[in-house]
Amino acid sequence: MNENLNKWLSNQFKGEKPVAPTPASPKQAKRKWLNKNKQNQPKLRIVGLGGFEEVGRNMMIFEYGKEIVIIDMGLQFPEGDMLGIDYLVPDISYLKGKEDRIRGIIITHGHYDHIGAIPHLMPELGEKIPIYATPLTLALIKKRQEEFGRSLNLRTINPDEKLKLGLFTAEFFRVNHNIPDCVAVALHTPVGTVVHTGDWKMDLSPINDKPIELNKIAKLGEHGVLALLADSTNAYKPGYQISERKIQESLDKIFIDAKGRILTATFASLLTRVQQIVTLSQKHGRKIVIEGRSMKNNIEIAKQFKYLKYPEKIFISAGEANKLPDDKVVIMGTGAQGEENAALMRIASKKHPKLSIKKGDTVIFSSSVVPGNELSVVTLVDKLYRQGATVMNYEMMDIHAGGHAKAEEAKLLVQLLKPKFFVPIQANHSMLCMHAQVIKSTGFPEQNILIPQNGQMMEFTPTQARKLDEIVIKKIIAVDGKGVGDVGPVVLDDRRAMASAGIFVVVLTVDSKNGKLIGNPDIVSRGFIYMRNSEKLIEGARQLTKSCYENHKKMVQKEVSKLKDILKKDLSNYLYKETKREPLVVPVVIKV
Amino acid sequence: MNENLNKWLSNQFKGEKPVAPTPASPKQAKRKWLNKNKQNQPKLRIVGLGGFEEVGRNMMIFEYGKEIVIIDMGLQFPEGDMLGIDYLVPDISYLKGKEDRIRGIIITHGHYDHIGAIPHLMPELGEKIPIYATPLTLALIKKRQEEFGRSLNLRTINPDEKLKLGLFTAEFFRVNHNIPDCVAVALHTPVGTVVHTGDWKMDLSPINDKPIELNKIAKLGEHGVLALLADSTNAYKPGYQISERKIQESLDKIFIDAKGRILTATFASLLTRVQQIVTLSQKHGRKIVIEGRSMKNNIEIAKQFKYLKYPEKIFISAGEANKLPDDKVVIMGTGAQGEENAALMRIASKKHPKLSIKKGDTVIFSSSVVPGNELSVVTLVDKLYRQGATVMNYEMMDIHAGGHAKAEEAKLLVQLLKPKFFVPIQANHSMLCMHAQVIKSTGFPEQNILIPQNGQMMEFTPTQARKLDEIVIKKIIAVDGKGVGDVGPVVLDDRRAMASAGIFVVVLTVDSKNGKLIGNPDIVSRGFIYMRNSEKLIEGARQLTKSCYENHKKMVQKEVSKLKDILKKDLSNYLYKETKREPLVVPVVIKV
Repeated sequence: MNENLNKWLSNQFKGEKPVAPTPASPKQAKRKWLNKNKQNQPKLRIVGLGGFEEVGRNMMIFEYGKEIVIIDMGLQFPEGDMLGIDYLVPDISYLKGKEDRIRGIIITHGHYDHIGAIPHLMPELGEKIPIYATPLTLALIKKRQEEFGRSLNLRTINPDEKLKLGLFTAEFFRVNHNIPDCVAVALHTPVGTVVHTGDWKMDLSPINDKPIELNKIAKLGEHGVLALLADSTNAYKPGYQISERKIQESLDKIFIDAKGRILTATFASLLTRVQQIVTLSQKHGRKIVIEGRSMKNNIEIAKQFKYLKYPEKIFISAGEANKLPDDKVVIMGTGAQGEENAALMRIASKKHPKLSIKKGDTVIFSSSVVPGNELSVVTLVDKLYRQGATVMNYEMMDIHAGGHAKAEEAKLLVQLLKPKFFVPIQANHSMLCMHAQVIKSTGFPEQNILIPQNGQMMEFTPTQARKLDEIVIKKIIAVDGKGVGDVGPVVLDDRRAMASAGIFVVVLTVDSKNGKLIGNPDIVSRGFIYMRNSEKLIEGARQLTKSCYENHKKMVQKEVSKLKDILKKDLSNYLYKETKREPLVVPVVIKV
Repeated sequence: MNENLNKWLSNQFKGEKPVAPTPASPKQAKRKWLNKNKQNQPKLRIVGLGGFEEVGRNMMIFEYGKEIVIIDMGLQFPEGDMLGIDYLVPDISYLKGKEDRIRGIIITHGHYDHIGAIPHLMPELGEKIPIYATPLTLALIKKRQEEFGRSLNLRTINPDEKLKLGLFTAEFFRVNHNIPDCVAVALHTPVGTVVHTGDWKMDLSPINDKPIELNKIAKLGEHGVLALLADSTNAYKPGYQISERKIQESLDKIFIDAKGRILTATFASLLTRVQQIVTLSQKHGRKIVIEGRSMKNNIEIAKQFKYLKYPEKIFISAGEANKLPDDKVVIMGTGAQGEENAALMRIASKKHPKLSIKKGDTVIFSSSVVPGNELSVVTLVDKLYRQGATVMNYEMMDIHAGGHAKAEEAKLLVQLLKPKFFVPIQANHSMLCMHAQVIKSTGFPEQNILIPQNGQMMEFTPTQARKLDEIVIKKIIAVDGKGVGDVGPVVLDDRRAMASAGIFVVVLTVDSKNGKLIGNPDIVSRGFIYMRNSEKLIEGARQLTKSCYENHKKMVQKEVSKLKDILKKDLSNYLYKETKREPLVVPVVIKV
């Protein structure tokens, strides 16, 4: 045992609480202290602040000793019962006080579930911390940042160069997705190499993008990988994802058959799809009108950074398009999810100043439907058909491929990387488990798969990995209008109650001198029933309120909130009995 | 021109308004009156009160002269923005005063979108009107009717016999769906034969059901069909529906692999799937616990009417199951849509008194996900995985087939029946149009396809068919708790507003003698923001209310509602400016 280690060990005694002596041989004692030593060596700590219980809000922290690297900083679009919320961002309270330890933030690609929380969280973390990304991703971050009017420390990733971040070294390999310039990260740490895929799929014949760098992946595998953190969004689906080349062939068939105008609806962020439409428009001699602010922005950025191949003058205005024959026009817009304010809905609802649907139009929905949007999409498609258009969607033809690896691709990645540990990331818990099952089927040992919760710390040594009990997130951070974090469970519960049966407010005016009711209680109800047709019900509620108040009016002096609880309970019971509905009942007591 | 026709023609003059004489040859005059004669001959009028703009609420009226036959009387489950509504039923105001002309109501099968409106509409139409259906369908109608405690005039259909209904004659042919005992109707009318498919698909190797009667269909085709009204739910999807035989094979594989208990979740109404689970349980030596009230009811009915083949003693209680080895148990329940109160959710949420999820359980989701339910299903599946279960769904294996004909089946039906006219029914407008496109691809003339709206009257002669401008429905009838028809657009709009940003009620107490405000305005808000953290905002709203009232207090005498409008507008603007949210603002003025 050398001097230094001895010194270090004795230091470990300081500040320790005395423990009852346990009988032990000198050998056991030595092993114990050596183990303790080992335990006190820094370990690699990895935690996902989001992305383990949802698709979205992706953000992972890698911590070794006093140094931290972050990968991705995304937002999550709200789920069905989060009424009125714009989106959710990760809770970064764990990083409070550790801001100066952050060596850098790596962003894998430019989609909002990976970049969207940047403008909300960076003011808190410190905008001097460098953010590293490929050129297109940086441009998209910059564009969004403009809305917030604050600057960032943005730095470019060259996927063929290593990046030193404190004691970490990051290496990159290109992956495919449905936007160009996506990278996966191999983070070399003191305990081993950890690979984070970001969003990925394998496309051996991609459109306007380089194929996934399988050779780099194989090389990483040869050198040894401690852990693979891999995208789970589609990993439970059997087979391989369809190549974008095949999608382009199907779209080509539609272009060949279309006799009138072609309208295409997709996400503005699917720049791969945008390229396909541009290529096909050029091939078939059509000009393109771009509709939708986000579509215009993204195409502008893609043009500027040369991520879009297009002939001069292919893009025209709506006014110019209206002068061309129908079979020379493509209108490319947002709105494939039936969003109220997106380009396609405005055109279909006759709210667009220059464009409307014509008989003979072919509308291509080139995207899948995000869960929760099915009914809006059906409403939109109904509108289109009513005006004489024909709609093509991915259920009829292969005109959309997802951006995420399916089961066979997930297996292939594991076979090439041969990681010691496997952590499925970026989806709901069940999808992570299904991904784990797929990986297990390759012979991967089940005990080496970790499936943590959001915020649950994981700890890695060169030979071991485990989930800790430590949960580092505390709450859900919702962005709603201007407010960040001011909408919580109570507000959402109230919104849900009102959504399902409305509100029923009873105003009691009380003489503060003698506690007597003045006049009749006023009743205000919204979203419950038609007040005009429900006089009997309202009168009943009024009488009930009066008699309930008479029975408990002593409470009006010092126990108003108790009084309100009683009124609320009695009225709720009455209304449920009469209508089988449960509006939110709110008693208001005014003393004059 | 014979005596009778002359007499008839002269009768036509009576009561006619005098018209300016037009110069015409005697020949022209004669043709004119003959045409008029023809026009006044009764025509077959067909109208769908629902099912032309939605999946559900199916009900069609067939009217010739003074005789009426009705096919189906279904409800529609509400769409995403119909907050808190239980379901919708057809508006039958067209039938008011015509009740005694109704010769009978034919029900094609026992699903709620075809039988669900019966208890709500029959009291109005008259419960003596005979309702005709096959035995299983009748049993399901009867079971539901028990909840309403009213009796009906139910009569059994024998699909091999003709049924005389006034001047109509109904003939039937069996079709497949995912419940046994489904029929399609060939209604022979004075102008020709009209075929109504109900819900159908073609299964040449069905489970516990007879195959579709293709020979009867071919025979109808030989004799000539005026119009085909055909199910459009899945007709836009390419190919043929999968046979239930194939589904059973896939389920069999899961039974072979499962080492622990098997839980199956499906709709209680999918009796075909229920039979498959029973058959496989028997084959693999497992006993079955039935969970969920509707599942128990439906199985009871199916057993009683011999629509379920099962060995004695296969059904056991939850208590008995808990004593058996895991690999001898199947738990068959409702809840494949993630419904809050269904069996599977209660088990997964530890709310079931006797059953909970165990590590090693295999849960089979044997149904598709109804649009709008995706997120609830993901939540449920997450819960199951957290407790150690493995989930199988239709995206992983062929363990569910829809109940509706796909494109190739739709074409086959048209090729066999060779109708003169085609009317796609039972889906959203766009799906009707897509169905029409599929039928057009067989060479069917486009001008012979009619796509009406809900409530739009169609008129048929032996050679012609057209849509009229006459719309016979007036409103949406919503059932919400005990109320039928008392929830309309205003109530729903309010619910939507409150769902997205809550409510903001301002109570102004006014001295009725001098019109002065008493004290500060009271503010009650729910589902908007945390009141406690928003003192500044609330105080601003209070000040605004006071100054706004001061400026307009003259209005408090005679123009209170105008005053409220002004308050509402000013407050809404203020709140939006400060929060970018739009709560429902409700001013209340109390005079004391």
